[in-house]
Amino acid sequence: MSFVAVPQGSDFPIENLPYGVFSTAGNPKARVGVAIGEQILDLSAVVSFYPESVRNALQATVLNDLMSLGCDAWAEVRRITKELLLEGSALHKDAALQARALVPQADAKMHLPANIGDYTDFYSSIHHATNVGVMFRGKENALMPNWKHLPVGYHGRASSVVVSGTPIRRPYGQTLPVDGADPAFGPCRLFDFELEMAFFVGGPPTVLGERVSVGDAAKRVFGFVLMNDWSARDIQKWEYVPLGPFTAKNLGTSISPWIVPVAALEPFLVDNFPQDPAPFPYLKHEQKFNFDIKLEVDIKPKATGVATTVCRSNYRNLYWTALQQIAHHTVTGCNLNPGDLMASGTISGDASDSFGSMLELSWKGTKPVPLGGGESRKFLQDNDEVVIRGHCSTEDGLRIGFGSCVGVVLPATPFE
Amino acid sequence: MSFVAVPQGSDFPIENLPYGVFSTAGNPKARVGVAIGEQILDLSAVVSFYPESVRNALQATVLNDLMSLGCDAWAEVRRITKELLLEGSALHKDAALQARALVPQADAKMHLPANIGDYTDFYSSIHHATNVGVMFRGKENALMPNWKHLPVGYHGRASSVVVSGTPIRRPYGQTLPVDGADPAFGPCRLFDFELEMAFFVGGPPTVLGERVSVGDAAKRVFGFVLMNDWSARDIQKWEYVPLGPFTAKNLGTSISPWIVPVAALEPFLVDNFPQDPAPFPYLKHEQKFNFDIKLEVDIKPKATGVATTVCRSNYRNLYWTALQQIAHHTVTGCNLNPGDLMASGTISGDASDSFGSMLELSWKGTKPVPLGGGESRKFLQDNDEVVIRGHCSTEDGLRIGFGSCVGVVLPATPFE
Repeated sequence: MSFVAVPQGSDFPIENLPYGVFSTAGNPKARVGVAIGEQILDLSAVVSFYPESVRNALQATVLNDLMSLGCDAWAEVRRITKELLLEGSALHKDAALQARALVPQADAKMHLPANIGDYTDFYSSIHHATNVGVMFRGKENALMPNWKHLPVGYHGRASSVVVSGTPIRRPYGQTLPVDGADPAFGPCRLFDFELEMAFFVGGPPTVLGERVSVGDAAKRVFGFVLMNDWSARDIQKWEYVPLGPFTAKNLGTSISPWIVPVAALEPFLVDNFPQDPAPFPYLKHEQKFNFDIKLEVDIKPKATGVATTVCRSNYRNLYWTALQQIAHHTVTGCNLNPGDLMASGTISGDASDSFGSMLELSWKGTKPVPLGGGESRKFLQDNDEVVIRGHCSTEDGLRIGFGSCVGVVLPATPFE
Repeated sequence: MSFVAVPQGSDFPIENLPYGVFSTAGNPKARVGVAIGEQILDLSAVVSFYPESVRNALQATVLNDLMSLGCDAWAEVRRITKELLLEGSALHKDAALQARALVPQADAKMHLPANIGDYTDFYSSIHHATNVGVMFRGKENALMPNWKHLPVGYHGRASSVVVSGTPIRRPYGQTLPVDGADPAFGPCRLFDFELEMAFFVGGPPTVLGERVSVGDAAKRVFGFVLMNDWSARDIQKWEYVPLGPFTAKNLGTSISPWIVPVAALEPFLVDNFPQDPAPFPYLKHEQKFNFDIKLEVDIKPKATGVATTVCRSNYRNLYWTALQQIAHHTVTGCNLNPGDLMASGTISGDASDSFGSMLELSWKGTKPVPLGGGESRKFLQDNDEVVIRGHCSTEDGLRIGFGSCVGVVLPATPFE
């Protein structure tokens, strides 16, 4: 039990201890914290309890240094943080230190938790890839021939990754309204969310030309966040052949501020998704690295203020594991840095209410999705708020949550 | 005239003054320098000659700060550097300062000149795009429908950009040796170079959701380098549908160490490539932003030691300008940071000896390219050295050079 109150249903019990970077009105310096109940433990204020070797990392303005220290250091920091938050701890007994070190989450501004050197987006949900394939290529050719042999992915735009709460502006861009006719230029008409999760890469930087084996990959996963990979569908469709999504995706990608460590997710390990055909040996692992994480997406139009849950999915729907993603990403020798972000791709389930994008939920705009308050949506409209939530739970009441990843769609800025 | 000797045919006369980051055996700290003849002017050693506002930038270990200061600051730094290097300057008169501030290039180790936040690769040579299209889709469908409407590009892997001289290891990866059969796993068999140029983005960071107009884009171009975008063709072909090149490209991308400022290239401005159809207004500009830069690629096998020039191309072959690349990159609101790198894509000319990759030079491996010393190549072999050079020249003897971008292909590391 923590001496810090953890309300019933909180995402942040002492079994979670996710990392984030925050500041306050009274202290605008960004600093590393751990969420507990409705509070943040400011690690920079309790740094003397930790070994010398991690103190600089805990006093940094981003989590990259802690990420770089590797999994033994993460375990040690987590152990000490937990001890500090238990009843009877040195911190519990020191009211003055508590006053300095515990900050209400309601008073904190959350920042991007790391400097993201590189951001990669995979495409690892078989239901999502199949849905998109059926829509655009028909049932027979739904999955591309490579899809079951390697975790398809692409390099994204690191600069455009923002923290939850940042508004996202509807973009202008080129589209092809009528096949074979001339392209058009104007505000995106098919603006969409994508329900994703992502993990931050940890461990020391690797060297270009060296691979990270699938057996070593688990040491490289610092923790997970929720992600909304905002997408301009009409722009994407016109631009993406042959080199992939570009401006349709670099308009903003939102992540939740709290990074949930892999250690907190261990009680929720489930079997890896069955893979047939068997992958090449460099992608094969016996270790479970799939998680039962319940995911939801709400849309809340400004006009009604009524939030409707339009999607209920689960991380376990992913065909490829994070370990396979890392092994494949580095198989040609790509070097990794702590703070790199690797995303899952849209996480759709089998059922039609588990699809992780409006593209799928409205089946390419053919089926309006009903919302509360008398509204409906095929794609996102201006001033819609999209809220992604995620949590794990056991029947005996343990809940490990991710908080939320929120963003409002701002109207496009007209061209002068 | 500079008081520093500039040998006949040097890439680095006083009209050039490219920026780089270097260190020496005696002083391993990376520092900002300017190339002049066969010397480097160590700007950190002469910082007192520059205004207070730029001194921190000139004492940094990378060029990002100088890039961020914007084009007025670049002009001022360039003016002062030029003055310092002229005969009769304060530096000319101070032998002790010269001894500290002038470092022979032969004694310097060159570093990556900037922290590259994001790296983007365009596909802006019409001859290259047409060649690839003809090879893979036939003459009728050579150019994709979008190609003449927007500068096609994709996000690359920033971590894998390395400075000239870094060896590049042949990768392992998945390929599809026979269409419709099972994929194979092994060392890349079709390893290639791509002759490219790239520019570094300057100016202060832009804000997500805001565009950089084509009219403002010139202020954002700090300077140009040579680039070799090493490519694993067989891996690329199997992986790239539908999300674009991924592991086939993140195995290493080499750039030349000296960034040639746009100001040095102004005498070599030429008409922009004629564009038909006319681009959308957001991509339209009257300002010339095309350059007559002569480019060459040599291959030197280790066994013979004989270098053969296999390609003679020119930057002016690019259909899309750097200004259009910037305007398009940001049209959906993508934010830019100083130090971002934007590459041209393979720069092929019209003539068959001007093709910028072995894929094109050997026409998909059907025509061996003869090398001196009795060798020939369809694609690169282990221990081949690839050297890219570039320069501008006028008939009256002005030569602005880029130095070279060099890399050796190392044999693949076997899987254990």
